[in-house]
Amino acid sequence: MPLVEIAKQNAHEVVPGYTARFIHTEQMTFAYWHVHAGATLPLHSHEHEQVAHVLEGVFELTVDGVSYELVPGKIFVIPRNVPHSGRAITDCSLLDVFNPVRADYQARD
Amino acid sequence: MPLVEIAKQNAHEVVPGYTARFIHTEQMTFAYWHVHAGATLPLHSHEHEQVAHVLEGVFELTVDGVSYELVPGKIFVIPRNVPHSGRAITDCSLLDVFNPVRADYQARD
Repeated sequence: MPLVEIAKQNAHEVVPGYTARFIHTEQMTFAYWHVHAGATLPLHSHEHEQVAHVLEGVFELTVDGVSYELVPGKIFVIPRNVPHSGRAITDCSLLDVFNPVRADYQARD
Repeated sequence: MPLVEIAKQNAHEVVPGYTARFIHTEQMTFAYWHVHAGATLPLHSHEHEQVAHVLEGVFELTVDGVSYELVPGKIFVIPRNVPHSGRAITDCSLLDVFNPVRADYQARD
């Protein structure tokens, strides 16, 4: 930091088919994901606010039981503690931004 | 919210050549910019932490007197209250993420 090359950060396969590189700032965590087509993200929730971006590809995000198709230009704001899951329709590049810092992800680095 | 189509948000020319659409969450502001080649961003600072992404193009960011060339894949974490300025080397698409919410930008919407 403060100039960060994302590709030089450690890569972590957090869930099968979901590989992320993380950047942690004072109050936020940025997760840059590469996801394989068909990979599923199990239902989960966390105390962090999350803003989900699809940078490339098509991703199905299910929030509180409702499914949404996300593509570049459409983002989703997931409130704190709301259960969500996902499925990659195609290979995807995703960016998730969390507030506060994801200490669980930070511990992986 | 919570599913947001960026292109449907109001566009604001904040500085000549710098047009943004904003999304404000509980604790963060996301600013999606289109910037014209050659447009300059005057030196300024703010109490918000800022993470700068170049999504397309080449952008020169100067932080605390040092200039950096930002391209897709290289991000910059600007700490709170640190003076910074910028210049678009080419037409650019930028994403800035702020914590806490930029009340000044929120007031424009």
